[in-house]
Amino acid sequence: MGLEVVLPSGEVLWTGNKCVKDVAGYSLKDLFIGSEGTLGVITKVLLRLIPNPAAKKTMVATFDAMDKAAAVVSTIIAAQIIPCTLEFLDRTTIHCVEDYAKIGLPLDCEALLLIETDGHPAVVAEEAAQMERICRAGGALEVRVARDDAEGAKLASARRSAFSALARVAPTTILEDATVPRSELARMIRFVEAVAKKYHLKIGTFGHMGDGNLHPTFLTDERNHEEMRRVEGAFKEIFDEAIRLGGTITGEHGVGLAKKSFLPKFAGDAQMRVMRELRRALDPQGILNPGKMFD
Amino acid sequence: MGLEVVLPSGEVLWTGNKCVKDVAGYSLKDLFIGSEGTLGVITKVLLRLIPNPAAKKTMVATFDAMDKAAAVVSTIIAAQIIPCTLEFLDRTTIHCVEDYAKIGLPLDCEALLLIETDGHPAVVAEEAAQMERICRAGGALEVRVARDDAEGAKLASARRSAFSALARVAPTTILEDATVPRSELARMIRFVEAVAKKYHLKIGTFGHMGDGNLHPTFLTDERNHEEMRRVEGAFKEIFDEAIRLGGTITGEHGVGLAKKSFLPKFAGDAQMRVMRELRRALDPQGILNPGKMFD
Repeated sequence: MGLEVVLPSGEVLWTGNKCVKDVAGYSLKDLFIGSEGTLGVITKVLLRLIPNPAAKKTMVATFDAMDKAAAVVSTIIAAQIIPCTLEFLDRTTIHCVEDYAKIGLPLDCEALLLIETDGHPAVVAEEAAQMERICRAGGALEVRVARDDAEGAKLASARRSAFSALARVAPTTILEDATVPRSELARMIRFVEAVAKKYHLKIGTFGHMGDGNLHPTFLTDERNHEEMRRVEGAFKEIFDEAIRLGGTITGEHGVGLAKKSFLPKFAGDAQMRVMRELRRALDPQGILNPGKMFD
Repeated sequence: MGLEVVLPSGEVLWTGNKCVKDVAGYSLKDLFIGSEGTLGVITKVLLRLIPNPAAKKTMVATFDAMDKAAAVVSTIIAAQIIPCTLEFLDRTTIHCVEDYAKIGLPLDCEALLLIETDGHPAVVAEEAAQMERICRAGGALEVRVARDDAEGAKLASARRSAFSALARVAPTTILEDATVPRSELARMIRFVEAVAKKYHLKIGTFGHMGDGNLHPTFLTDERNHEEMRRVEGAFKEIFDEAIRLGGTITGEHGVGLAKKSFLPKFAGDAQMRVMRELRRALDPQGILNPGKMFD
């Protein structure tokens, strides 16, 4: 809700406040958020706390085809349910996670959805039952509903350990976060699979289906220069496809150095020019995080 | 979720997309939103639609003292209920509304709360019952719960007609939207009452208590120059107090010309300088809405 920002001049700026509504002046707060340290250094944040949900229900559903999992996600969203968790793991990720964390995940499947709903107990019970029905009707191999919070937490740990589990199996792990409108998820996941085949690469994909946010994770070895060139080619294709589908090159991790070269294609000339001008206006000497996001 | 903006150069910029998450580049969208036409002309907007709530419950509670109404608002929020409507009308506004719309509002009270909750039927029923209990425990003179949607809509019209009802009674109506953190609402409403007395002015106050957003409405006559000077003095005191309480000079209506002179005190030197620099960067010739918000 508010930020304290140190500007390149050394001046300290406070923007935002405890008001739920405030339209006085430009939304500087939102300009600084996500600016990756290129416009100012954030030294304090004012956050709104929200109460813990009264109830929660966790379930895992497995599918013999990724498309079925994606269709189930679409049906859940079309039913106007907004689960607090709607995570997807592909076959590679499922096997790595089970190997690593021994949760007892079903291994004979191509895709796994981890689904959680929270809130008022009556709503949670209703939504959980409805989502279980949607999974079964959508051809799930198995739907496992956690009987209690402990079992729920165990199932949820599958998603939390995904990155660590993948990181174990190769010397270098490169995690991306290409994001697309939810309606394009199935297409994007299929595309990542095809790219992995085309470039002879191992990619484990997991992600937040509820947000259209995918994490194709390259399991590679940076010492292998020939393979790294293939990784770069694959990256480029994945980002190009995300943009083509109306998506973005980064859903939550930011641009930094790694995605800097992809930003102009995503943002377009006008946005790039405006971003450069804003940066020049706020940091004329270019002393803040130079080289990050764009030159 | 997205905007098409025509820049002063004539260039057309698109910012935002259908992704739920997107952190690629600066949040230009949020910079343009609320910039009051001073950074670019918004020509298209991409909006997210949310489903209609399945159920709704409306009630009206009256109080013999404004402080009791404010305390009830605090108790409702502390109970972690977020009503979709939590509107306040003071005595002046109640009488004007009843005179105008003949809703059958109770007239023998100092403050009226219009409360609505919507969402899942079970949650709505529970929250409505809880809020009714809170109103009664908080010393409400009367709590009227709408029996059906038609009665609910009739009660809700009290708030919707507030401005028209006030506007009828004086040649000139000046509506403000000073906003404070919710915890400071009672203090702010008392302050507005005191200012009305001090400057011998008629002020009807209504507003969105759930947002801390007040609409002190001056019922005056712009042909009366002496009275207009008192109105200006009263304004200044109200805005100063809103700022002192950690609030803002405008919760939803914007700065424009009317609140331009109050922006520097609210925003502070550093924010004013940054806003000026951003405006200069985007509109170096100063052709967009000149004179609005700040010089």
